Amino acid sequence: MWFASDNTSGAAPEILEAVVRANAGYASSYGEDAAMARVTDRVRALFEAPEAAVYLVATCTAANALGLACLCPPWATVYCHRRSHIEEDECGAVGFHSGGATLAPLEGAHGKIDPGKLALALEAGASASVHNVQPGALSLTNTTEAGTVYTPAEVAGLAGQARARGLPVHMDGARFANAVAALGCAPAELTWQAGVDVLSLGATKNGCLGVEAVVLFDPRRSREFELRRKRAGHLFSKHRFLSAQIEAYLDDDLWLRLAKRANARAAQAAAGLAATPGVRISHPVEANMLFASLPAAVDRALQAAGAAYYSWPDPQAVATADGERVSVRLVCSWSTEAADVERAVAIAAGAMAPLP
Amino acid sequence: MWFASDNTSGAAPEILEAVVRANAGYASSYGEDAAMARVTDRVRALFEAPEAAVYLVATCTAANALGLACLCPPWATVYCHRRSHIEEDECGAVGFHSGGATLAPLEGAHGKIDPGKLALALEAGASASVHNVQPGALSLTNTTEAGTVYTPAEVAGLAGQARARGLPVHMDGARFANAVAALGCAPAELTWQAGVDVLSLGATKNGCLGVEAVVLFDPRRSREFELRRKRAGHLFSKHRFLSAQIEAYLDDDLWLRLAKRANARAAQAAAGLAATPGVRISHPVEANMLFASLPAAVDRALQAAGAAYYSWPDPQAVATADGERVSVRLVCSWSTEAADVERAVAIAAGAMAPLP
Amino acid sequence: MWFASDNTSGAAPEILEAVVRANAGYASSYGEDAAMARVTDRVRALFEAPEAAVYLVATCTAANALGLACLCPPWATVYCHRRSHIEEDECGAVGFHSGGATLAPLEGAHGKIDPGKLALALEAGASASVHNVQPGALSLTNTTEAGTVYTPAEVAGLAGQARARGLPVHMDGARFANAVAALGCAPAELTWQAGVDVLSLGATKNGCLGVEAVVLFDPRRSREFELRRKRAGHLFSKHRFLSAQIEAYLDDDLWLRLAKRANARAAQAAAGLAATPGVRISHPVEANMLFASLPAAVDRALQAAGAAYYSWPDPQAVATADGERVSVRLVCSWSTEAADVERAVAIAAGAMAPLP
Amino acid sequence: MWFASDNTSGAAPEILEAVVRANAGYASSYGEDAAMARVTDRVRALFEAPEAAVYLVATCTAANALGLACLCPPWATVYCHRRSHIEEDECGAVGFHSGGATLAPLEGAHGKIDPGKLALALEAGASASVHNVQPGALSLTNTTEAGTVYTPAEVAGLAGQARARGLPVHMDGARFANAVAALGCAPAELTWQAGVDVLSLGATKNGCLGVEAVVLFDPRRSREFELRRKRAGHLFSKHRFLSAQIEAYLDDDLWLRLAKRANARAAQAAAGLAATPGVRISHPVEANMLFASLPAAVDRALQAAGAAYYSWPDPQAVATADGERVSVRLVCSWSTEAADVERAVAIAAGAMAPLP
Repeated sequence: MWFASDNTSGAAPEILEAVVRANAGYASSYGEDAAMARVTDRVRALFEAPEAAVYLVATCTAANALGLACLCPPWATVYCHRRSHIEEDECGAVGFHSGGATLAPLEGAHGKIDPGKLALALEAGASASVHNVQPGALSLTNTTEAGTVYTPAEVAGLAGQARARGLPVHMDGARFANAVAALGCAPAELTWQAGVDVLSLGATKNGCLGVEAVVLFDPRRSREFELRRKRAGHLFSKHRFLSAQIEAYLDDDLWLRLAKRANARAAQAAAGLAATPGVRISHPVEANMLFASLPAAVDRALQAAGAAYYSWPDPQAVATADGERVSVRLVCSWSTEAADVERAVAIAAGAMAPLP
Repeated sequence: MWFASDNTSGAAPEILEAVVRANAGYASSYGEDAAMARVTDRVRALFEAPEAAVYLVATCTAANALGLACLCPPWATVYCHRRSHIEEDECGAVGFHSGGATLAPLEGAHGKIDPGKLALALEAGASASVHNVQPGALSLTNTTEAGTVYTPAEVAGLAGQARARGLPVHMDGARFANAVAALGCAPAELTWQAGVDVLSLGATKNGCLGVEAVVLFDPRRSREFELRRKRAGHLFSKHRFLSAQIEAYLDDDLWLRLAKRANARAAQAAAGLAATPGVRISHPVEANMLFASLPAAVDRALQAAGAAYYSWPDPQAVATADGERVSVRLVCSWSTEAADVERAVAIAAGAMAPLP
Repeated sequence: MWFASDNTSGAAPEILEAVVRANAGYASSYGEDAAMARVTDRVRALFEAPEAAVYLVATCTAANALGLACLCPPWATVYCHRRSHIEEDECGAVGFHSGGATLAPLEGAHGKIDPGKLALALEAGASASVHNVQPGALSLTNTTEAGTVYTPAEVAGLAGQARARGLPVHMDGARFANAVAALGCAPAELTWQAGVDVLSLGATKNGCLGVEAVVLFDPRRSREFELRRKRAGHLFSKHRFLSAQIEAYLDDDLWLRLAKRANARAAQAAAGLAATPGVRISHPVEANMLFASLPAAVDRALQAAGAAYYSWPDPQAVATADGERVSVRLVCSWSTEAADVERAVAIAAGAMAPLP
Repeated sequence: MWFASDNTSGAAPEILEAVVRANAGYASSYGEDAAMARVTDRVRALFEAPEAAVYLVATCTAANALGLACLCPPWATVYCHRRSHIEEDECGAVGFHSGGATLAPLEGAHGKIDPGKLALALEAGASASVHNVQPGALSLTNTTEAGTVYTPAEVAGLAGQARARGLPVHMDGARFANAVAALGCAPAELTWQAGVDVLSLGATKNGCLGVEAVVLFDPRRSREFELRRKRAGHLFSKHRFLSAQIEAYLDDDLWLRLAKRANARAAQAAAGLAATPGVRISHPVEANMLFASLPAAVDRALQAAGAAYYSWPDPQAVATADGERVSVRLVCSWSTEAADVERAVAIAAGAMAPLP
């Protein structure tokens, strides 16, 4: 019953096998491996973006920060959700890699930026003088940090606002696969067709060992990306092992199959817990994460049974804080087993069952 | 006949098996995996340094730049060899990660800093005023970029000069294993006992997929390292895969066995080529790299046979430049086969054999 | 009727005369002038801080950013008021000079940080992990950007919270003189005795041409300050002209006399406008700035008469926004004339007078 | 007898009077003063560059570093002379302001970059891969740090090499006036017509209190300059005092008259010392600086008489170092008096006169 994070799972067998296969023989280093050329072709085809530049790094933070650094200068600010990973979990990486760009966190229910709040922020930014940081870019997270999913129309709405102001758009897609799996849309629809300029295409959380693709739909800043990646120490010498992971990941829709599996487990958990007396689901469960407010008895029973998950600050819960409830996050991954979910639900139900 | 670089080799079977084994089950992320605790213990034991802080990253550039960033402030300069990797091959990574530190390249034969040149530079640095960049640190590369090896006494001599000025010492040990294998000394002798404060302990080039350990013999800056690593995007979520590599690498002296193998092949190549008429060996071949000036006929014959290696600028060769010679670098790795070396030597000899 | 800003005034005659006097003869450059030694002595005496390090720069932004850069590392965050100059008016200078430090803006009425909000923020910061930016420093602005003044007790309360967490405290004293003039306290009471580590001691706005002193009450980071100042380009060659200004500024309490004059004019304006029907004073007028919500007729009449001032977003006013009101800021300086204030008040009153 | 530096002189009377005049009344701040508009017009006219963007800062280091930061990205290197101010005297300011750009110091006699060395460096830079810092810009210093002057043809030759590679050209003109005064050419000939993109037009050393103009002949990066200046803390609130200095400086050719005076004094000193037995002039004296190797007796006599100047490392002198000689730099300024020069020459001659 390991629901702490999707990055506590290992790699999917197909990925691991690809890495083992890639080990044979000699290969050019630093991204000049033959597999990388195939990866680029495959990503371009998948996204219907024949001009896109594609690069691999090993962490989500690197993907986000390097991508954003190519979109905005040191004196710019990036509009993002207050609960976004770049704001809350990357120790200032965007500022570091961009040489100073700041973040302008915006509110919005269920992890999605409120379009009205973005409009206000952009309006304020439009009158920035030389004394102010300048509007720089919009960053959207999809799947959001609340486990919800922006639809293509929602992305287009927010991105359209930014682009109308001349601002580029970044998408943190650490869980992009879960979003696409949930929506059933084409990757292009959710990205460049909706106004996204740069995508962090996550793979680590969804079954790889450690690899993320950065997709620059506008390839003009590709050389800049390469140089930023290198001097940040993110260009791998034995790059073939990154290429092999992504190649296998995209092969035969593995990425979507893994994501669907994770999403299905989260849905299973949501259904079960929603039916448990006293449990409140905090956000719509649309991908592979479930946020809930649990009666303390449920929390205690799950912990006692060895379930691993994080308590998670729930802004709304603060207002109604009572010592008898715990806000938590449960994350499912490609490797989460239905039986574990079932067991967790049963434990929760048991904890709330009237004494016989 | 692949002598382009040791990073064009794959991973040793033991390493790959460890990665596969590490995949089982769930593990805490971001360096909290159980294997990392074992790695720290093992590195401390190997280096007889029970207080040392140990961290893993995936690239040599990250290891060097993060380590040096913890040693000197943005306004400092790092004394290093003119041919060092941080000066020539990392696209300004030290400056980037440190927030501005510069490099002061020094000359010295065969890839080793000339002690007299260091003394002059330190003497000049001692009178730095507020108008100048300040002396920051000394960085030594061992195995050097010329394929030679600093002895413990040589390290102690240079490091001692720096420490006498209050400057800390970094060692770029991308090929540290090859140096230890060549010298037969204890790792402690070559590092902290000789005055090294921070070591980049390379593993990628010597049989891993992608992992380097940074060893802070003085652990006072360990929290700083952790924060620098994170905000640079170098903290891995599925960190277990880094831990597994290093654990297997150090297990049962695998690291030394792999390095000895590579060194032996380079020695074999050196012996063979030294006996080839017209071939001049440029630097003492002490580890796994061989630099030579080849008659053009030898170069053509090797290329025609499919041998992969880089031509390499040889400062000394410039003075005696003649169109009929080519300066080259041949690198052996753990996976280089004796038969390949033998074949290359035979081709070289054949190219210079008098026509029958 | 020039109320746009105190930096639209010229220099006080005493300051200008000192600059003219300082021009005679030759003087050592880059801060080695004899006058600077006197300035240091004088500032130390004034602040009863015989160990303090004192440096001069020419702009308030430089003083704040360089001072804060000496207090916190690149991965730190500075707690400050949402309306503070470092947050709103310095184009990211703190992040630039510190190499990445971010700002954590806090709310609070009338330009003062709410102690409860600070407590919450510090409490949240105390559990920062390696994934988060780290608590770095507290920055207080006194006189605040709302024209109010923190008392020594208020400073001590907020600074005490920060220091209890091990965080240093910076004070943006661009209008420090106005605060001391308003409070009648000793400079030491308002700074180091209340827990302030570094003070930006403003002088430009209060009658100088362009000079600010940075006072490091803890001199351990003085060399760091000197190097940061130099490489940022803020070390003046003909430094004597900065020294001369500050020396004259502190001579014979000129700084307090100038500030009192400015404060008195603001009080005069406040009294007059408070008595004008329809005018609402937004914040207590405690120093040299007055914020008010004016009936549009008053605004129009003042503008028509050539009064210069800025409209100023008033967060509270938003709630009661009606098209017939304008929120404004009026700033008085050492050179504001009583007659001009009187005239402005009369115009305002006239605009609201019932038609005869 | 004050020959330490031209920045140990005060301001010329005309400049000081302009500052006093500028003090009257109120003026818009932060560069919006009416005088700045006149300054821009005047600089454009002087340089026959009607599109040029003109900005004022207070230090030479700020002018150079901000200007260069607008010319090259963080991963670039700036080709400059080994003795240039940006390399030797600005504590890494270019790296700081640009976010990481490095310097590539080049050799050349008498302070001028050797065209052949530049050609070699550019040729090497042309093959920079992603592992290397990238060619960024060329920076020329005119008047050089050796007191010599590049002619328009020499500037055009070096700048032409850079531009042929697509690199922009910066000129550190801290002593630009002395160069123009020496050459008698038009400012345009020495700058944009010869391929210079950005000029630091010095004024402080040549009779101002503290102001330098940055002239962007290509105005496309003007907004970037404004933002860099602001966030670096170099935008003055009471900007009128900078404007007033430059306006007076350019008025009625004052800048050239002051420079000619300084140059004439240096020529007088050179003529006198060249005729003194045992004195060797190190570099052609073409502007306001004189470098010489003095017999120790001359040095002692001058010091005893209270002459102020710096000993100055002379690379060539090292080879022939003998304890009986001292290498020195003497700098004349607008305020150096002919009588002082005469006296110094007489003292030198006296020290070498045979005992009667």
